[in-house]
Amino acid sequence: MVFPSKLVEEAVLAFSKLPGIGKKTALRLVMQLLKDDEEQVIGLANAITRVRLDTKFCTICNNISDDEICTICADKSRQKNIICVVENMRDVLSIENTQQYFGQYHVLGGLLSPLDGIGPDQLYIESLENRLKAGGVEEIIMALNPTIEGDTTIFYLNKVLQPYQVKISSIARGIAFGSDLEYTDEVTLARSIMKRLPIETYIK
Amino acid sequence: MVFPSKLVEEAVLAFSKLPGIGKKTALRLVMQLLKDDEEQVIGLANAITRVRLDTKFCTICNNISDDEICTICADKSRQKNIICVVENMRDVLSIENTQQYFGQYHVLGGLLSPLDGIGPDQLYIESLENRLKAGGVEEIIMALNPTIEGDTTIFYLNKVLQPYQVKISSIARGIAFGSDLEYTDEVTLARSIMKRLPIETYIK
Repeated sequence: MVFPSKLVEEAVLAFSKLPGIGKKTALRLVMQLLKDDEEQVIGLANAITRVRLDTKFCTICNNISDDEICTICADKSRQKNIICVVENMRDVLSIENTQQYFGQYHVLGGLLSPLDGIGPDQLYIESLENRLKAGGVEEIIMALNPTIEGDTTIFYLNKVLQPYQVKISSIARGIAFGSDLEYTDEVTLARSIMKRLPIETYIK
Repeated sequence: MVFPSKLVEEAVLAFSKLPGIGKKTALRLVMQLLKDDEEQVIGLANAITRVRLDTKFCTICNNISDDEICTICADKSRQKNIICVVENMRDVLSIENTQQYFGQYHVLGGLLSPLDGIGPDQLYIESLENRLKAGGVEEIIMALNPTIEGDTTIFYLNKVLQPYQVKISSIARGIAFGSDLEYTDEVTLARSIMKRLPIETYIK
């Protein structure tokens, strides 16, 4: 594309570096910015700068935070004896949105993936062990994606966390609500038959 | 959504004001920003601020420009006797990318749309008339979208520009290259039969 304005070109290039945004989408965004109020556009630019420069990682759970300790870890009304292990901040948000979990979190910052060169040292596993060493934790819930990487990470953590004698569980896997048996993959269907639940727990 | 960080929340809200970006996409973009180099993120923020504050509109054609006069109007090698009338900057880019047009442009800044309250005064029509009054223009090409609004604008401009005795034409409409007769709408198909072209021009 030949741009009549260098500034437009730079903005389009900058936007198109973001995931899922190609040149055409970037151009549409920039054209919207040209129409928007100055104040709103400067607000976006400031929000971008601040979210990158001023956010920290919670020193306890590694979740993104505005302070040294995130609002979840700082919340005294939450259960302290249960830790939910997740891959990233987005998974914390997803679980929080269910409003069914009131324990602690631990953000790993990724999943084990030997092919991508991601080993245990790249993840926040040591800090999880330190939390267990400090005591008071009775259960660890693995809430990781049902992929090869997720399962590998669960197996690894299960081995590493054995010495701490906590109960280790994983979120239930099966057929999603509203889904269709016909289109469910064989692995999921087979697992959901093997791990069938008593009808009382289902009805409840 | 309950965000663990106010800064993340603000950035997500700012992004989700852009067209086509919902909360989930905005969150994905913000998570990418948290991973990206500081330099790159600040570059994006600066590009956004600068494209809004430092771009001007070309005083001749109303296209977006870094200077008083845009690079196309300032280019002395381009034909001066032909003006292509378009809705916005994006259409200029589309036509420029064909590398088949070497004349001038005039950006209207919209299309007539009585239902949306957009009348002739909201568009850059007077400045187009001024260019014709100044003389030297022989042809006006209407390159507007084939919609009700586009057609309304063409009819209006055709009437207003009659006194200047320039040749007025419109980009050809018909069946797009690679398209299928079966799925072409009736209006387009009927028009493309009525406005059929001699086979010599087709082959050429």
